[in-house]
Amino acid sequence: MSPKSIAIVGLGVMGRNLALNLERNGFGVIAADLDSQRRQEAAALFAGKNAAVAETAVELAAGLEKPRRILLLVPAGKAVDAAIADLKPHLQAGDIIIDGGNTYFMDTARREAELAASGILYVGCGISGGEEGALHGPSIMPGGNAKAWPAIKPMLQKIAAKAPDGTPCCEWIGPGGAGHFVKMVHNGIEYGDMQMICEAYFLMQQALELPPLRMHEIFSDWNRGELHSYLIEITAAILAKTDAETGRPMVDVILDTAGQKGTGKWTSQTALDLGVPAPTIAEAVFSRTLSAIKEERQAAARVLTGPDKKFAGDRDEFIDNIRRALYASKICSYSQGFRLLRAADRDYGWGLDLASIARLWRAGCIIRARFLDDIQSAYRARPDLPDLLLDDAFRRAIETNQAGWRAVVARAAELGIPVPAFSSALAYYDGYRSERLPANLLQAQRDYFGAHTYERVDKPRGEFFHTEW
Amino acid sequence: MSPKSIAIVGLGVMGRNLALNLERNGFGVIAADLDSQRRQEAAALFAGKNAAVAETAVELAAGLEKPRRILLLVPAGKAVDAAIADLKPHLQAGDIIIDGGNTYFMDTARREAELAASGILYVGCGISGGEEGALHGPSIMPGGNAKAWPAIKPMLQKIAAKAPDGTPCCEWIGPGGAGHFVKMVHNGIEYGDMQMICEAYFLMQQALELPPLRMHEIFSDWNRGELHSYLIEITAAILAKTDAETGRPMVDVILDTAGQKGTGKWTSQTALDLGVPAPTIAEAVFSRTLSAIKEERQAAARVLTGPDKKFAGDRDEFIDNIRRALYASKICSYSQGFRLLRAADRDYGWGLDLASIARLWRAGCIIRARFLDDIQSAYRARPDLPDLLLDDAFRRAIETNQAGWRAVVARAAELGIPVPAFSSALAYYDGYRSERLPANLLQAQRDYFGAHTYERVDKPRGEFFHTEW
Repeated sequence: MSPKSIAIVGLGVMGRNLALNLERNGFGVIAADLDSQRRQEAAALFAGKNAAVAETAVELAAGLEKPRRILLLVPAGKAVDAAIADLKPHLQAGDIIIDGGNTYFMDTARREAELAASGILYVGCGISGGEEGALHGPSIMPGGNAKAWPAIKPMLQKIAAKAPDGTPCCEWIGPGGAGHFVKMVHNGIEYGDMQMICEAYFLMQQALELPPLRMHEIFSDWNRGELHSYLIEITAAILAKTDAETGRPMVDVILDTAGQKGTGKWTSQTALDLGVPAPTIAEAVFSRTLSAIKEERQAAARVLTGPDKKFAGDRDEFIDNIRRALYASKICSYSQGFRLLRAADRDYGWGLDLASIARLWRAGCIIRARFLDDIQSAYRARPDLPDLLLDDAFRRAIETNQAGWRAVVARAAELGIPVPAFSSALAYYDGYRSERLPANLLQAQRDYFGAHTYERVDKPRGEFFHTEW
Repeated sequence: MSPKSIAIVGLGVMGRNLALNLERNGFGVIAADLDSQRRQEAAALFAGKNAAVAETAVELAAGLEKPRRILLLVPAGKAVDAAIADLKPHLQAGDIIIDGGNTYFMDTARREAELAASGILYVGCGISGGEEGALHGPSIMPGGNAKAWPAIKPMLQKIAAKAPDGTPCCEWIGPGGAGHFVKMVHNGIEYGDMQMICEAYFLMQQALELPPLRMHEIFSDWNRGELHSYLIEITAAILAKTDAETGRPMVDVILDTAGQKGTGKWTSQTALDLGVPAPTIAEAVFSRTLSAIKEERQAAARVLTGPDKKFAGDRDEFIDNIRRALYASKICSYSQGFRLLRAADRDYGWGLDLASIARLWRAGCIIRARFLDDIQSAYRARPDLPDLLLDDAFRRAIETNQAGWRAVVARAAELGIPVPAFSSALAYYDGYRSERLPANLLQAQRDYFGAHTYERVDKPRGEFFHTEW
C-alpha cells in the first residue's frame, strides 16, 4: 500500500464524509476509530477507493506520507486528549495534528503549546456545514501553529466549499485557538439566526394563524431578497414537508424543546468575559433553555394570563414588517458577533482579518448567506470599522427597515408573543446609538452604597470622584 | 493582652467596618494587613477599643482564642490563596477560616475540600451591604464546612442586620460553595434591579423630559408601595442631590459609563452552564458593557437614526405604567434568580432553603425590600414551588400590572428608547407561559442540517426521530 496523504481519526458521520470528500479530491486517506463496527462500516464504504482503515495508531502512522497529516474528528474534550496521547509516540517533529471538532478555543491553545514542545504542529480547525458540507464542501477555519499551513493548505482549500466567485471557503485564521474561536462565534451567530427565524415563524403562526404551507411561500419569497441564506432556504423546505406517518405538516408534529451542544453557550460566556455586548446571541441560548422546560410551561400556560394573541390590523403589512424585523435584528446579531471577534483579536493578538472571515462563511457553512458578501465588503472597505452598524449599507438598511421592526416588537409585546431576540436586538441598536444611557444613575447608586466612585461629564476620563451622599 | 474572639485579615473599608461592628457587639478583634499604612490607620481607629493590630501571621494566631476564627476580607482570587498559605502553618485542626469576599463559588468549594484534609474548617461567606452594612449590620450568607457553624453562629448573627421582625439576616446556607453561590446570585439580582430602575429613570428622562427633582418625587412615591426597597430609596435620594461644584443635579454631572466587578457576569455565565433561563440578569450585565463604550456611542449617535423620543400621550398614565413595568419585570428577574438557586441546589445537592434565603435578604443587603417578605411567604407556603411566577400573589401582581408593562415596552420600542431588561423580562414571562414555543422549527432545522434528531408531540418523551429532509 502506497502512503496516504492524510489520516482521519474518528469515523462518525463527519469523519466518514470528510474522508470521502478528501478521497474524491485525490487525497489518499487512512482512517481509524476505536469502535470496530465503525471501522468495518468505513472499510465497506472505502471499497474500490484510495482509502484504507487502520486498526492501530502504529498502523495509521506507518501508512502516511511525511510529514504526517492527521485530522481528528472525535468529540470535543477528553476524547481529543486521548487521541493525541495515543498518536504522539508514533509521530515525529514536523508532523501535523488537526482537530476538526467543536473544541473550546482555550483547550486548543493549550494543546498547541504543549505539542509545540515536541515539534508537532497542532491546528485547531473549525469545520462548518454539517454532514452535507463535510461530504460536498464545508467552510473551514484553521488556526494554531502557522508552520502547518503550507502543508495542509492545498488539501483543505481543495475540499472546502467554493463561494459563488470561486474562492475556497478556507483561509488561515491565526495562531493558538483562533480557528476554534472563529468557529465558536460562527455557531453563536447561527444560534441567533435560528432563533430570529423561529420568532418570525412564531409571530405568523400565533398572531396571524398562518398554516405552514403559507409560511413556506413567505420564507421562499424572503429567500429571493436580502435574507437569502441557507437557513431561510431550509426553513422554507421544512414548512413544506408533510409527516409520512400522520399526513400532518412535519413542523406540527415536532416537539418544541430545543437541544444544544454548547457552542452558543460558550459564545455568550466569552462575550461576558471579554466585556462585549452580545445580548441577542445570549437571548437565543436562553430561549433554548426555556423551551426545554416543556412540562413546566404547559402547567404555567394554564394559570398565567395574557392578552389575546390575534393580530387585528393589516396582515400583509405585518408580514412585511416581520421580514424587516428579521433583517434588522440579523444585522444587530452579526454586529455583536463581529465585535466579539474584534475584542478577542485585540486581547489575544491574533491578527484576524474580518473581511476574510466573512468571505469564508459565504458558502459551505450553516450561516452562509448573501448577507456575508455585504459584511465582507464592509470590512474590505474599512478594515478598522468599529461596528457593522456604522457601515453605510447596513446603516441604510436599518434606516429603511426600522419602522417595521419597531412595530413588530411593539405589537408582539402587546399581543403577548415572546420575541426575545428581536426585542433584544432593537434595544441593542437603540442603546448603541444613544450618546447618553442611564448608567450615570447606576454609577451614582454604586457610589452611594459601595463608594465605587464615578467619572464626571465635565472632567477628563480617568479622574474618579466620590460623593458623601 | 487577653485572647481575642476573632481575627480580621484585610483592612480595607469592609475589613475595618466589620472589625468595628464586631468590637461594638462585644467581640475582641485582632486584625492584620500586608500594608503597613493600613495597619497604622487601623491601630488609630482601634484606640480605646478591644481591638488590636497584628504585624505577622504568628502574632495573629497567637492572639486568638481557640478554636481560632479568622475572617478574610481580601480581594477574591490569588490574595485569598496567599492569605490561607500565610496563615495555615500557624493553625491547628478545628480552627476556622472564613472568606468574606466575593469569591467565585467553585474556588470556595476547592479551598474547603483542600483545608478539610488538615482539619481546618473553611467557610465561604457572602456579605452584602456595602460599607454601611459592614459597620451597622450586613446580610451574611455563610456556607462550607458545617462543623464551623456552631462556633461562628452567635457572632455572625449578632453583627448581622435584623429584619423588621427581629430575625438576624444570617443563616447557614449549605456545604461547599453554597454561601458564595447565594451571594453571587444576590449580586446578579442586584444587577437586574439596578438596570430596571435605570430604565424607569431613562424613560421618564427621555420620553417625558422630567427633571431629576420631579423624578425624585416619583421614586419617593413608589417607595411607599410594593416597590419599597433600599435601591428605590437611594435612587430617590440621588435624584434630589445637587452637585456642590456646579449647582447642577448630581445625576446630570455623572458620566454614563458603568463599572462592574464580575459577580453579575458570573451569575449569567453560571445560568448558561446550568441551562437556566436568566436573560434579564444577562441583559443587565450587557447593558453595563454597552454603557462602557461611551466614545463609540457618541460617534454612533451622530450617524444612526431613530424616531423622535418624545411621548405624546397621557403622561401620568405613562408614569404609572413605568411603575407597573418595573414591578412586573422585577418579579421576572427574581424568578430567574431563584430558578438559578434551585438548579444549583439540584446539581450540587446543597439542601438550600429558599424561604430562608429570601428571609436573610430582607435587611442589611443591597436588594433589601418589602418584596422579599412576599418571596419568603411564597416559598414557606410551598417549598417545592417550581417558579415564583406560579405563586398566587405574584401571579396576581403580574395580572394587574401587565397591561401597563406591555404598553411601556411597546412605546419604548416605538420611541427608540432602549429598555433591554423590561423587554427581556416580558419575553421571559410570555415564553414561560407559552405551552407552545417555536422550538419545533428550531429542532427541525437542527435535524435538517445536522441530523440532531427531534422528539414528536404524539410520541413519548425520550424517543428521538430523524427525517430525511
